[in-house]
Order: sequence, then structure tokens, then C-alpha cells
Amino acid sequence: LSGLRPAASGRRAGLLAGIDVGGTKVLGVALRADDPAVVLGEARTPTPDSETGLLDAMADVVRQLDAQAGRPGITAVGVGIAGLIDRTGRLRVSPNLPGRRDVDIGVELHRRLGLPIRVDNDATCAAWGEYLAGAARGADDAVLVTLGTGIGAGLIADGELVRGAHGFGGEAGHMVVDPRGPRCPCGRRGCWERFASGTGLGWLGREAAEAGQFPRGVELAGGVADNVRGEHVTQAAREGDEDALEVMQEFAGWVGLGLGNLVTLLDCSLVVIGGGLVEAGEVLLAPVRTAYLRQVMAPEERQGVRIVPAELGERAGATGAALLGGLEASRA
Amino acid sequence: LSGLRPAASGRRAGLLAGIDVGGTKVLGVALRADDPAVVLGEARTPTPDSETGLLDAMADVVRQLDAQAGRPGITAVGVGIAGLIDRTGRLRVSPNLPGRRDVDIGVELHRRLGLPIRVDNDATCAAWGEYLAGAARGADDAVLVTLGTGIGAGLIADGELVRGAHGFGGEAGHMVVDPRGPRCPCGRRGCWERFASGTGLGWLGREAAEAGQFPRGVELAGGVADNVRGEHVTQAAREGDEDALEVMQEFAGWVGLGLGNLVTLLDCSLVVIGGGLVEAGEVLLAPVRTAYLRQVMAPEERQGVRIVPAELGERAGATGAALLGGLEASRA
Repeated sequence: LSGLRPAASGRRAGLLAGIDVGGTKVLGVALRADDPAVVLGEARTPTPDSETGLLDAMADVVRQLDAQAGRPGITAVGVGIAGLIDRTGRLRVSPNLPGRRDVDIGVELHRRLGLPIRVDNDATCAAWGEYLAGAARGADDAVLVTLGTGIGAGLIADGELVRGAHGFGGEAGHMVVDPRGPRCPCGRRGCWERFASGTGLGWLGREAAEAGQFPRGVELAGGVADNVRGEHVTQAAREGDEDALEVMQEFAGWVGLGLGNLVTLLDCSLVVIGGGLVEAGEVLLAPVRTAYLRQVMAPEERQGVRIVPAELGERAGATGAALLGGLEASRA
Repeated sequence: LSGLRPAASGRRAGLLAGIDVGGTKVLGVALRADDPAVVLGEARTPTPDSETGLLDAMADVVRQLDAQAGRPGITAVGVGIAGLIDRTGRLRVSPNLPGRRDVDIGVELHRRLGLPIRVDNDATCAAWGEYLAGAARGADDAVLVTLGTGIGAGLIADGELVRGAHGFGGEAGHMVVDPRGPRCPCGRRGCWERFASGTGLGWLGREAAEAGQFPRGVELAGGVADNVRGEHVTQAAREGDEDALEVMQEFAGWVGLGLGNLVTLLDCSLVVIGGGLVEAGEVLLAPVRTAYLRQVMAPEERQGVRIVPAELGERAGATGAALLGGLEASRA
């Protein structure tokens, strides 16, 4: 033990910054690897449009965290961002930077901050965060599914992230669940997220509204059936509106179908649901659990499998990113 | 090094027996862990109907292998069998033992042989075999899919098997790909194996035959459209029959859909196709590759991904079982 150099031990005790780049905001948290549930600092800023603006904003968030968190300061950074991120941390394609390909966020951010940087997919980060500090603690075979505008997912198998050959593992939202289904912006038909995301919920709500079967939804949407969105369905369902509950039931069927597929394939003991839609609470989760049981193979052999809401909320991605950043730095 | 006990070193150098329990035969191979591509012994026997008969047959195959392979004799046994096998090696449900649940094959076989036994799903074993000694060597993120009467799959992520919480990982055949599709014996609708297995190929062939669009198939089936099976489609397609090639195209679309889903989710660099259908060769694989490219997310980012036939043929399951048996014994 006397052989430990102060530098090495100082580095171990250093703070980690995690950044989650979302469509509307860049959210950062500071934490320590050995106690990741305790947030030591938090900073946020709106997501800029340009690549340079985004990189500067991310660096700025880290500097704010460093100032907030105090000694010994931030020693490693993790970034979670939507899209396909390869194993070297290159952003290949992202909805947040349309038209751009192959952005080396790690190199750019390292240039600005001089710290070790790890970049990963946002849902992958969120899964790691929930696994080490949230709802999936102790569940070595788990999947986190974020139901937002689209669907993201992160997979944990035997306590490790399933990152895949390129680093693109977990794109569950683009598994095809109905080859005759509606066209997806990705080019294929019937991707899971066409049905089971917030976008899908809005689509089901509009279909009901346009068929005259969801008057409360039309009312909430300012009188225009075509303006019905997912949140109108959720709100009406919470009020107890029968039509909304029926739409929610149909929606839950699609969510349960995909969750059933994931559990059938990966044999997870736990499914964690995150993303904006989880705020709907039991009005969504209860029918999802029922639908899942109809769709998973051999449910009688999987009685311990649970479907639970995420615990870390909007901080899940940043928390996981910070922990992955720390892991990367300790391996370097 | 002088501390190595002879017993330990003798055990390391021991031979492994792997047994694959199929619907028609029990196939065993003997090999050494350090050179698994070399088969040192092989034995087979028809699959008995009864549980006791099956266990006795398995023990008998191991004894034959032990006699064939000579010194230092079999020191560990692995068994691959269709169905859900839990992590303790208990067979929970299997098509080979209908009506039986919870058969502790490991304990029963150990009682007969006095050797360490590991039991796993047959496709899981085949994936491990192809990974260590066959087509997937070096592909740390790979999936093996066996297209036979049904569909089996084994998943390798970062060089490890994805076994799942219970040990049921890899049941890709029961992922739902069309919720309005035909009923599956498992109780759900539109499972992948309803379309993309030998059973699915036969079904597509009969549909074409019954619509009068596959006269060569009817001829091969002895003049009865309702008797058209998958092998008639394959044979006619190999002869160049246009109708058969069209059925094969449709079939390949379903195979490609599921493979696309697996690669989208798991980001494999390699898909190995095994099972009886792989004998169709390029008449199947070529259209499958085309269909896969239409179905996978972001194919332009996955240009190195290959779809190849299995190399170990009928020995894949037994080879992987032997290697898993050796692994288990060395950990014990």
C-alpha cells in the first residue's frame, strides 16, 4: 500500500462529470464513483444548434460543475448523446446534429478541457446509471427502455453493457415489429418506436380523435383532432377518460410486445422504463405489464421478472455517463 | 510452476465429451479444450422417447466416447438440448420431452457417470462451438441462428455468451415480428419462427402451391399441394424453378427481417446461420443477405457485418457443449 503514488490516489478520489445531451438541454452532474447516487453538482444549458456551439456548451457545463463541486475537481468526463456512437467515441449519426456524420466529440472536448473523455449513446449511459445507482441495482441482466419522442435502450448482460461490435448496441426502437406497419423516418416500416414511443402514443390518439372516438383529447388539443399528442392522451387517461384509457391500452399492447421480445431474447430479470412517458405512472405501467405477460415466451418460467420505472429521472444519462467516464479514465 | 499438482495438470489435459440431444439422434463428440476443431471420437444413437431412456442413452454415448478416445479419458461432459435450461442445468421445458418439466439432467447424468456435467440450450452450445472452433472465431459480437424445424439462437456479446437471468437467453425464434400473423404453438401470434424456419418455408410453399403458383412443388410432393414441405421448395429452387425462387425470396425476406432486428439490437459483426436449412446454400443465403440489408438499421455504418453459414455442421452443438463442460469443470 505504501507504493501508491499520491497522484494515482488523488486521481481515484477525483470527481466525475457526466453530461447528457438532449434535444432541448445539455444536463451535467458531478459525482464520485464510489457514491454515485449523491449528486455533488448540477448544471444545464439549452442545446445549441451548431456543432461548435454544442461542444462549447458541453465544455462550459463541465467547467461549471468543476467550480461547483470544489476540490479535488473533475478528473474525468463522460458524455451521453442520442445516436450511433462508435467504440472510439465518434458520433456517427445523431438526431441532435442532423446532416453531420463522424464528429469526434471525445477529441474536441479533450482539446477544450484537457481531461479524459468518454462518449456513448445516451440510453446506454442511462442504463449504466440505473444499474449502478438506480432502479436496476443488482440486476445483472436488465434492459433500460426510454420511451420519449423515440425509443432508446441500453442492455446489461451479466453485469456488463452490451455495446456491440461498433458500439451501436441497444437500438431496440428500430426493431421491426410489423413489416406492414407505418413508414419510419429511418426508412423501414413498422419499427417498434413508430408505435411504442410518445410519437406512437400521439399517433394512436389522433387516430382515435379523427374517428370521433376521443372527444376529450380533441378538447385538450384546442379543438383540433389533428393536434392531439401523446401528452393529451396521458392527461385524459389520468383524469379517467374512458376513450383515453382505451388508447392507452392499445399503446400498452405495443410497448408490451417489444418488451416481451426483449425479455424473450435476452432473458432479463428486470425492465426499467425511463423517458418522458414514464411520468404517466401506473396508468401506463399497469397495462404494459399485462400486455408484456401476453407477449413474452414462457412467462410461467419468469415469474420474478419486473417492469419498473427508472429512479434517476432526467439525471440517469448524465449519471451513467459520469461513471463510464470514470471507468474509461481508470483503464487508461 | 513446480507447485502444479499432477492431478490438476492431468485434469487439464483430460478429454471433454459433448452431447447434442436432437429430435432424432443423440450425437456425441470427444475433443480437447486446447484443440476443439479436432474431433477425437464420435458416437450417436437414436433419441429415445422416455426420460430414463434418454438419460441412459446420453450416458452410453459418453462411455462410447471414453472408450474410443483412449487415455486420459473423458473428464468433463457438456450437454446441449433444445428447450429452456436454467443456469443450474435444469431442463425446464423441452420439445424433446413433452409434458415433462424440471428434469435435472446434470444430477441424473452425474449419477450415471460420476463426471462433472454442464447442461445448456442446444443453440447456445452451437453458438459457443462456432465461436471457439468454427465460423465465428474471433467475432466477439456474434449471433448464431439455427434454421431448422424451429429457430434457435445463441448470442455472443464481447466474447461471452448472453445466458440471461435464468439461462434462457437467445430465444429469438419467439420474438414477435407480426402481431397479426399466424398462431404459434407457443400461444402467441406471428413469432419469427412461424415464418423463418423450415416450418415457415413449408407453409409459404404450400400457400403458393394451393394458389396454383408452384406446380413443381406439387410434383415433388407427390401431386398433393398440401404435402409441400420446406425441402421441396429448396430442391425446386436449386433446380432453378422460378416459382420456388419466388417463394425463397419471400422466405428470405422473413429471415432477413429477424436477422436485421438482431443486428440492430445487438450490433453483431457476424451472423452465423446453422440448422438444416443452411444446406440450401447460396440459393437461400444470397436473398437473405439482400433482405437483411433492407431491414437492419443504418446498414451504411455496418459494412463489415457478414452473414455466413456455420462451419461445424451437425457437430456444432456437441462441440460447444464439450467446451462449456470443460469450462464448468475448470471453474468447479
